[in-house]
Amino acid sequence: MGAVKSKRMPRAVREQQMLDAAVQTFGQRGYMAASMDEIAELAGVSKPLVYLYLNSKEDLFIACIRREAKALVEAVRAGVRPVLPADRQLWAGLTAFFTHTARHPDGWAVLHLQARTHGEVFAAEVAAMRADIVTFVTELILAAAREALPQALGCARAGGTPMDPHLPSGEVAGLAEALVGAAEALADWANNAPGVTARQASATLMNFAWAGLGDLMAGRPWSPPDGEALDVGAGVGAGDAGAGAVVHAGRTCPVR
Amino acid sequence: MGAVKSKRMPRAVREQQMLDAAVQTFGQRGYMAASMDEIAELAGVSKPLVYLYLNSKEDLFIACIRREAKALVEAVRAGVRPVLPADRQLWAGLTAFFTHTARHPDGWAVLHLQARTHGEVFAAEVAAMRADIVTFVTELILAAAREALPQALGCARAGGTPMDPHLPSGEVAGLAEALVGAAEALADWANNAPGVTARQASATLMNFAWAGLGDLMAGRPWSPPDGEALDVGAGVGAGDAGAGAVVHAGRTCPVR
Repeated sequence: MGAVKSKRMPRAVREQQMLDAAVQTFGQRGYMAASMDEIAELAGVSKPLVYLYLNSKEDLFIACIRREAKALVEAVRAGVRPVLPADRQLWAGLTAFFTHTARHPDGWAVLHLQARTHGEVFAAEVAAMRADIVTFVTELILAAAREALPQALGCARAGGTPMDPHLPSGEVAGLAEALVGAAEALADWANNAPGVTARQASATLMNFAWAGLGDLMAGRPWSPPDGEALDVGAGVGAGDAGAGAVVHAGRTCPVR
Repeated sequence: MGAVKSKRMPRAVREQQMLDAAVQTFGQRGYMAASMDEIAELAGVSKPLVYLYLNSKEDLFIACIRREAKALVEAVRAGVRPVLPADRQLWAGLTAFFTHTARHPDGWAVLHLQARTHGEVFAAEVAAMRADIVTFVTELILAAAREALPQALGCARAGGTPMDPHLPSGEVAGLAEALVGAAEALADWANNAPGVTARQASATLMNFAWAGLGDLMAGRPWSPPDGEALDVGAGVGAGDAGAGAVVHAGRTCPVR
């Protein structure tokens, strides 16, 4: 009876069981060390059936990457509620991200460790997902900057030094990259440091990032305490006069 | 005469020429596509000599990783001057980092892209360098927190809500991970976005990070604007009561 039931299981259900087993095996043992034998055994199916459904170890791994990437992006998007103020949105999005990576450590290991370590085809799959996340974060930062605009203008009207409340697009792209890079590094760390919860990781990143982003959107960028002009060329990499110039020394609005 | 001179070139000099050629080839063409033929030709030596000196493509790649990692770590350490205030130190360290990655884009591609994409042995080499950098950044943040201590205490004496100016060690480790992850992501971005200079990348990360870190060290962590308690368990990943607790809602020192 059990065998008959098993044979009648729809293909889609069986595939998900194979993918569950594959993500666990790849995530915990690594892509190279994982064998199709142990994946089939863990999934409770025969090895030929795994090959029949998913073709090869490479194709199985790509299917794992795609499923885990889709789930992660959906979890982050679902966590952000656009009606909230910008910092609450960021907090909600980060908590959703770290909660998902903590609940699915094998999936995160597949995406952020295994997929990037075993060849350009796999790395390209993950790069596509990462680009989606960066785009989403860029939109969040732009929305936050629009929300901050009245406050920044109010600061100028109240006697603050004139400033540009708009964030140049190059600056927003850089901020989104920094935020995503920091979140990736913290997810690796949180999943490997004993006792670090998803909320702690989110709080660490809020502490690190929000006051910085928040000050920036209110027209209060960081500037060096004395002498060193940021907009004057000096040495390699200098010359910030272009559209991407981001530090407006002496143009900050005083903290109230 | 030139041939005689060439033959008398010390082995160390020849090896550096081979490594220069190899870093350029691996960085620009990728580990898989790079051939020992083109590396030898670019170095101006015979292929057997490359094998004689550096044994195999794998060993040559590992030698590249080690040389580029050492150079990057040394550049960052040299950029930071311990006599400076914390934000200037961070600015100096970030500028040194982004200047080095901008000057040596092939070396950075070897370290951050190629080495992590082509197998666990190479990834482990880079992980060792990354651990060095995280340790160094952790020390910087601890030094900055010690420096901020009198200011934080002064805030409490001036009538601020009592707070703990010490950063828990778990929190500092998380902040260092976040900073290094953000810097890595920004270096990739800066080397691929047209017209982004090392100083712009540094300024973006200072804007993103410093006000956040600075507020945190002065005892002003981020906290949600209403209701949501951060220290009460709710859902997966909650329960921040341990040593790593980082957000002290309601214990912030008012902004002066």
